[in-house]
Amino acid sequence: MDVRQAAGEGEGPLAMIIGGGSIPIAVAETVERRGRRVVLFPVSGWADPAVVEKFKHYWLPLAKAGLFYRYARAEGCRDVVFVGKALRPPLRSLRIDWLTLRLLPRIVRAYRGGDDHLISNVARIFEDYGFRIVAPHEVAPDILMPAGPIGTLRPSQRDEADITRALAVLEATGPFDMGQAAIVADNHVLAVEAIEGTDAMLRRIAELRAQGRIAAPAGAGVLVKAPKPQQDRRFDLPAIGPRTVEEVARAGLAGIAVVAGGAVVAEPAAVATAADKAKVFVAGIKAPDR
Amino acid sequence: MDVRQAAGEGEGPLAMIIGGGSIPIAVAETVERRGRRVVLFPVSGWADPAVVEKFKHYWLPLAKAGLFYRYARAEGCRDVVFVGKALRPPLRSLRIDWLTLRLLPRIVRAYRGGDDHLISNVARIFEDYGFRIVAPHEVAPDILMPAGPIGTLRPSQRDEADITRALAVLEATGPFDMGQAAIVADNHVLAVEAIEGTDAMLRRIAELRAQGRIAAPAGAGVLVKAPKPQQDRRFDLPAIGPRTVEEVARAGLAGIAVVAGGAVVAEPAAVATAADKAKVFVAGIKAPDR
Repeated sequence: MDVRQAAGEGEGPLAMIIGGGSIPIAVAETVERRGRRVVLFPVSGWADPAVVEKFKHYWLPLAKAGLFYRYARAEGCRDVVFVGKALRPPLRSLRIDWLTLRLLPRIVRAYRGGDDHLISNVARIFEDYGFRIVAPHEVAPDILMPAGPIGTLRPSQRDEADITRALAVLEATGPFDMGQAAIVADNHVLAVEAIEGTDAMLRRIAELRAQGRIAAPAGAGVLVKAPKPQQDRRFDLPAIGPRTVEEVARAGLAGIAVVAGGAVVAEPAAVATAADKAKVFVAGIKAPDR
Repeated sequence: MDVRQAAGEGEGPLAMIIGGGSIPIAVAETVERRGRRVVLFPVSGWADPAVVEKFKHYWLPLAKAGLFYRYARAEGCRDVVFVGKALRPPLRSLRIDWLTLRLLPRIVRAYRGGDDHLISNVARIFEDYGFRIVAPHEVAPDILMPAGPIGTLRPSQRDEADITRALAVLEATGPFDMGQAAIVADNHVLAVEAIEGTDAMLRRIAELRAQGRIAAPAGAGVLVKAPKPQQDRRFDLPAIGPRTVEEVARAGLAGIAVVAGGAVVAEPAAVATAADKAKVFVAGIKAPDR
């Protein structure tokens, strides 16, 4: 069998390799509502078993590229979406199959760098095997952050200044393929995300505040999320959800600003409710000019 | 009394406003060994009471500028050193005296920004009142990080690549007046310091490693510390000590690289012993060309 043979022509069902969080299911529901069948490939240890049950799915242990290839072909899938929270596993923890083994030198090279580097190299491997990688928002545009506020509050002038500074920080760190989020309060950079993730970063700020280590008063400060400047937007767009709103409130910040069209919102209605309840703003902002 | 009158001429004893850690005492001992008297002003809540006992000292509650002014003048001090770990206190927690009250508008403006901004504005106030701010390494040059290794290990070629990348990250974040440290492993930026401090950042990496969230194997990765590009070197140079070495080992990193002459080493002999015991390198490196 020539594994490099094209994996099928035409639209066909959409293969979704999914990680954690609620966004994968929001995407799957939208795609099916729009009349296209989905086949989920939840990654073992990342995806939530409870939520994949209502869709056709095949559990996918990491490093089982051969398994994905076999089932996706059998289902007639050519288009593949990657969506959901992923954890970068230690290479040594992977139990690999034959196809992955053949690809291992490429995967090892992909590992030596940031997330974008890893993701785009893995994507290229899929493309070499005849699949087409599509962005979650190509198949479900309504998951993208809209412009303007979600909920009733809006950023103050002071918040706008903090947003501008946070965007500048993210612009500076973008080329290093690190986090997509920063926290600024009263013009002071409190945190820049690297591998810990946004929730962990917010919990850190809540702790430092409890220890009296943050000079800005509660109710000042903004979490800003923006895609990296050179990011391949088919993968790993920044995301927020109701839990982000709750963590922002616990960290004593004024709100969340997200580049409109450059981030994904899980459960927008729940985000609006959570924002109004916690008295924080959630704003879709313009990307800085480049 | 004209509080703006010069606080004394000539060398006289050295006033040291000191925070936490062991570096202030190392500086005080060096200065006295070189024949100049010191008067310590340990800041309440920051400095360690046990270590200030052997020197003439006046405890200084924060926001008691008047108290410092009175005692420093009475002691004939004109030169002032700031040294040791400081915590940025919430403004509302300060119980201020009359002089501080008069200065409050300037202090409030100084608070709206990063540490450098705060520190240089506070320094300017001291200078307006006739004091001269001197750098800890002006009065105790032997506290500066030397070039080359401390201990027996040296960075590998892989470590050198990680050091270069970390220096580039710090160069990019420097203008934002945030942290002075970053951690890179296998070309992947694991953490950038903001307000949490180096020890907390290292503990975060140790935790993420325990959770299997770090792809690089144990023994890869470097903590790099460098002064900010526009930093006023009289204040807040990055510092390392034996505890930094222990935290680096716990985080599973290969070593520490510090810009030679641009950072302070507490207890160099103890750092060498700790480095050899933990099998990590500690290297004084050249600052990147600008």
